Amino acid sequence: MPFTSAINLSIPLLATATETADSSMVLAAVLLSLVVIYFASKLGGELSNKVGLPPVLGELVGGVLVGVSVLHLLVFPEGGTDTSNSLIMYFLQTTAGLTPEATPQVFAAQSEVISILSELGVIILLFEIGLESNLKDLMAVGIQAFVVASAGVIVPFAAGTVGLMTIFGISAIPAIFAGAALTATSIGITSKVLSEIGRLNSKEGQIILGAAVIDDILGIIVLAVVGSLAKDGVVDVGNVIYLIISASVFLIGAIVLGNVFNKSFVAIADKLKTRGELVIPAFIFAFIMAYLASVIHLEAILGAFAAGLVLEETDKRKELQKQVIPIADMLVPVFFVTVGAKTDLGVLNPAIPTNQEGLIMAIFLIIVAIIGKVVTGLTVFGQPGINRLAIGVGMIPRGEVGLIFAGVGAASGVLSKPLGAAIIMMVILTTFIAPPLLRLVFPDSDTATNLDNNLGESLAAEPPQTLITTKDD
Amino acid sequence: MPFTSAINLSIPLLATATETADSSMVLAAVLLSLVVIYFASKLGGELSNKVGLPPVLGELVGGVLVGVSVLHLLVFPEGGTDTSNSLIMYFLQTTAGLTPEATPQVFAAQSEVISILSELGVIILLFEIGLESNLKDLMAVGIQAFVVASAGVIVPFAAGTVGLMTIFGISAIPAIFAGAALTATSIGITSKVLSEIGRLNSKEGQIILGAAVIDDILGIIVLAVVGSLAKDGVVDVGNVIYLIISASVFLIGAIVLGNVFNKSFVAIADKLKTRGELVIPAFIFAFIMAYLASVIHLEAILGAFAAGLVLEETDKRKELQKQVIPIADMLVPVFFVTVGAKTDLGVLNPAIPTNQEGLIMAIFLIIVAIIGKVVTGLTVFGQPGINRLAIGVGMIPRGEVGLIFAGVGAASGVLSKPLGAAIIMMVILTTFIAPPLLRLVFPDSDTATNLDNNLGESLAAEPPQTLITTKDD
Repeated sequence: MPFTSAINLSIPLLATATETADSSMVLAAVLLSLVVIYFASKLGGELSNKVGLPPVLGELVGGVLVGVSVLHLLVFPEGGTDTSNSLIMYFLQTTAGLTPEATPQVFAAQSEVISILSELGVIILLFEIGLESNLKDLMAVGIQAFVVASAGVIVPFAAGTVGLMTIFGISAIPAIFAGAALTATSIGITSKVLSEIGRLNSKEGQIILGAAVIDDILGIIVLAVVGSLAKDGVVDVGNVIYLIISASVFLIGAIVLGNVFNKSFVAIADKLKTRGELVIPAFIFAFIMAYLASVIHLEAILGAFAAGLVLEETDKRKELQKQVIPIADMLVPVFFVTVGAKTDLGVLNPAIPTNQEGLIMAIFLIIVAIIGKVVTGLTVFGQPGINRLAIGVGMIPRGEVGLIFAGVGAASGVLSKPLGAAIIMMVILTTFIAPPLLRLVFPDSDTATNLDNNLGESLAAEPPQTLITTKDD
Repeated sequence: MPFTSAINLSIPLLATATETADSSMVLAAVLLSLVVIYFASKLGGELSNKVGLPPVLGELVGGVLVGVSVLHLLVFPEGGTDTSNSLIMYFLQTTAGLTPEATPQVFAAQSEVISILSELGVIILLFEIGLESNLKDLMAVGIQAFVVASAGVIVPFAAGTVGLMTIFGISAIPAIFAGAALTATSIGITSKVLSEIGRLNSKEGQIILGAAVIDDILGIIVLAVVGSLAKDGVVDVGNVIYLIISASVFLIGAIVLGNVFNKSFVAIADKLKTRGELVIPAFIFAFIMAYLASVIHLEAILGAFAAGLVLEETDKRKELQKQVIPIADMLVPVFFVTVGAKTDLGVLNPAIPTNQEGLIMAIFLIIVAIIGKVVTGLTVFGQPGINRLAIGVGMIPRGEVGLIFAGVGAASGVLSKPLGAAIIMMVILTTFIAPPLLRLVFPDSDTATNLDNNLGESLAAEPPQTLITTKDD
């Protein structure tokens, strides 16, 4: 009986966990987390940039460093981590007088806030990518790029999903998620390397970049479908067809209605006289679209991407882009560092025998990731003498898009720890391997070096260089 | 026994409230809340701007409109509101399939996230104000402005606190908080009106603006002290002295060490080559300062303000300001709308007899607010023929700084509902009343109209026009 009443007494406290959490402690925890995130992102991003890799990869590795794999500065309760594992909580206890009793509540609230900030980060990232993707130019690249992109989505997806299910006995939904992560192509990395070896405006370069942009769009549709399957927990053919159609209709509908939206947007922005006259209406639009996408069971980021595509068609685009950049700079690193921090690479430690399966899965995914894209070069038709191998190799790096898949998958909770870590390893490795491979398959690249470095801007596909843009660009 | 075991079963669920809250529902709720906040802020801000009042006042009123007083779109659990009162929760239940069982957790998580976003908003606001306050110019305005500012802090603070304690029997801490809210002066409103009537560069205008800037700094120190008292719950003279000294030492220390900080900041920013090379190091600095301020029991915003003051002294200032503006545009409205939304103006409804005391308190605060600032004009010395009344009247509007007090007070939980609402009424009324009064006490203002409208930029005090800046400035 005393035991029962003790429980009864403690219930109100537990039920109102988030309300009773001392709000100034939560704020202090969030501030410290952001400081850690920004340190990790800048350290990793700058080092990565220095060795010629995209900053985003460094941000991810920085996240792995501060997260559950190594330093335990930024950890989340999802992974079964308790508060004693969080160095930030320990730091708050020693410096700010956080009591051990209040710690679980502050820890939960801090994790909730950082997770939502990270999701806002990826929403703004996709909005910015949409804002930088020019649809009309894209359509001019033509059917060639579309075929390559489709092959580059279908082949790795099918091989990855079927392989995981049959060889490793993974159940359908996580297997589909991993397969989907294999479809991504990082336009940032490829376009940067092509520009460095003077091949950006070659026929191969044009096809690769066009295909990479289309690939991004297809990938976002795939992600919306797969994310929805993960929420429902069942794969049924009717549902899959409904989701593919609704995702496509949503995106195409937004673009078709785009003229109405962007005319009203310009009219409203012109009328507003107080600060935020561009950013606030744009975010109202983007957040409503993100909400609508999630209401019809797709991913919020699809809505943000569609909103970006629509507003790209206005003459406010340049000014809006300029204002979105600092906001993205503040929020996007939260996403990439959080993805890294939540990834427990320890589950792939080869010294531990039980990790064997995860490691083999990682190796399998990497092989599928490489071969699945290299074969896409074979689908190029009617282009005698074209370097098909180069086109396939150019599609290999997964970069930021692959990470978005991994992040969304981890947040949905469908991926097992080894599978999640295997996907991250696949993304990191394909991204590391692509630049040297590309140089290899363009054997005469040295002679052409820097020939068309400055032609990048006239590029038909106008790639969203969001994630690789460096200060001096 | 079945009852006990039912409780036992439910405990894990309750304990992990925030973890189990469906994260995509929380995200949807946050997105909807932001849409509501942005709508309210733009609607209120633009209308306010149209009638010649500062946009921030409209944002507050917009917040009142969508909040607990009227529409119940944006409500928070603190006020004892349950989830059935939140229209956003109702909307999520009808459109997004949110279940009634999951609603309390989603509601709690959404409120936590919006509250922290609002606190990040006020941190960035104070960082931006710091970044726009030029210390050297301020020192040139001299002792005259300092005396006026000190009188404008001491008189209303003493009269308000003592009056509330003796006349209304309010206990010490809430009375001190309300007294502190009376000390603020809105530089934005006054400088705008002075510029409109062509008096910005008159002797009176110079003293008013200098005093308003110093008043802001004194006010932030007062707020840091009072906020700390509210946390501890006791007022003891030793503690007050410790807090005043530590707040002053913190601010002066930051400024004195500023040279070291801003040299390292510039050196680091120059080395960074990837995106966010300015904003991220600046935020790392600002957030660390905010954390330090809160660790030594002051307010986080004092740290952010100090960080802004320090970075103002670098040659990166202009570029940094430009990048911070869109971020502030995104986050600051969350603060002002949230302050309005949390204010229950219903407690001042004169039709309900029990509200009488709150109403009388509001009237008392308004009278003290006006008289307490008007008398400061009398402290001006050695300036024969100067318009002392005009100087006093120029100090009346509380504007954004008064709202920051009200918001921090409400968040700390020390203010009763009627007292909180009375403070908001005082801020609104003093802000509404100042522009016509100022025109009245400068009787010859029409003849001087627009004479020095364009001299604003050469103004010695370079006022932080953050909150009144309109697009065409």
